[in-house]
Amino acid sequence: MKEKLRTHIEKITALTDDEFEFVCKHFSSKKFKKHQFLIQKGDPVKHSFFVISGLLKLVYTDNESKEHVVSFAMEDWWESDYYAYFTQTEATMSLECLEDTEVLCFTLEDYKNLCAGSQKMQSFFLEKANFGFLGSQRRIISWMTSNSKARYENLLKQYPSLFQRVPKSLIASYLGVSRETLSRLTS
Amino acid sequence: MKEKLRTHIEKITALTDDEFEFVCKHFSSKKFKKHQFLIQKGDPVKHSFFVISGLLKLVYTDNESKEHVVSFAMEDWWESDYYAYFTQTEATMSLECLEDTEVLCFTLEDYKNLCAGSQKMQSFFLEKANFGFLGSQRRIISWMTSNSKARYENLLKQYPSLFQRVPKSLIASYLGVSRETLSRLTS
Repeated sequence: MKEKLRTHIEKITALTDDEFEFVCKHFSSKKFKKHQFLIQKGDPVKHSFFVISGLLKLVYTDNESKEHVVSFAMEDWWESDYYAYFTQTEATMSLECLEDTEVLCFTLEDYKNLCAGSQKMQSFFLEKANFGFLGSQRRIISWMTSNSKARYENLLKQYPSLFQRVPKSLIASYLGVSRETLSRLTS
Repeated sequence: MKEKLRTHIEKITALTDDEFEFVCKHFSSKKFKKHQFLIQKGDPVKHSFFVISGLLKLVYTDNESKEHVVSFAMEDWWESDYYAYFTQTEATMSLECLEDTEVLCFTLEDYKNLCAGSQKMQSFFLEKANFGFLGSQRRIISWMTSNSKARYENLLKQYPSLFQRVPKSLIASYLGVSRETLSRLTS
């Protein structure tokens, strides 16, 4: 199971066996069933999760109790309510399993210790954070330019398997379009 | 001028004089006049900029030649077309001065050398990248929840000085609302 993490890290930086052993000391593994919550709104957020297998949705619920899918996380993705995680405050979002899911996870303290103890891993997380920022910026631009067709096509191109694994209502929520608009786009 | 950079870095991590001298070796300073471009769409992106004084707008131009303000950058902000910078590709956005502006800047090579040579600075950039990602995520959520009034009030609360320094048409573009909607929100 941890070999998947190693393969993932080594896409960015090669590790010796000793270095990878040091990395592993900071992670624990957990299994969740479909519909289980990894994070519930209002709770403290103890972990950042690396998805080994399965699928998660990160959801923000607005003041009118409407749910908005902020992101999906599948194999090889990192996910959490990162604002609450980094600032050690209560979750403003929820993280729920759309499939049975296996994760590796670590606390903020473990994350900090890992970065302090391994410049390679700090460099790895810096690259992930920079590209996480870029992904969000591209998504903001796609919202600004208000082209739901382009948003849909981009998602389909980037993550074709999502469309087999996720109900269309959730994809519509992620794209910020109505279920009817999504049907028109997919027909 | 570089003391402003030191003060900025030391909000996150303290540096010795020697460490700060090492940091400074990686930066050069530049001055630009109002309306000058730091980055033009289609050009290579050589630098990431730290704003010492002045104000910048990062703009994405869509296929219909409509301009969208992706972000503003004022004192103490880092700005670039980061996708083009990190991937060493051509700019898809432009970065233009809204006021006379002084910056410190560094190339991608200098950024990488600085991170490799100073774990403290790598840690600093990791924290900036994580919070950059969180800022973008919050902005995505505010777009999803489609509440232009809340978006306006949030911007006003976070950056009251923007409203004195930036034409309303640009603030409307940043918020993704029409000039008329912004007038209604501000009246």
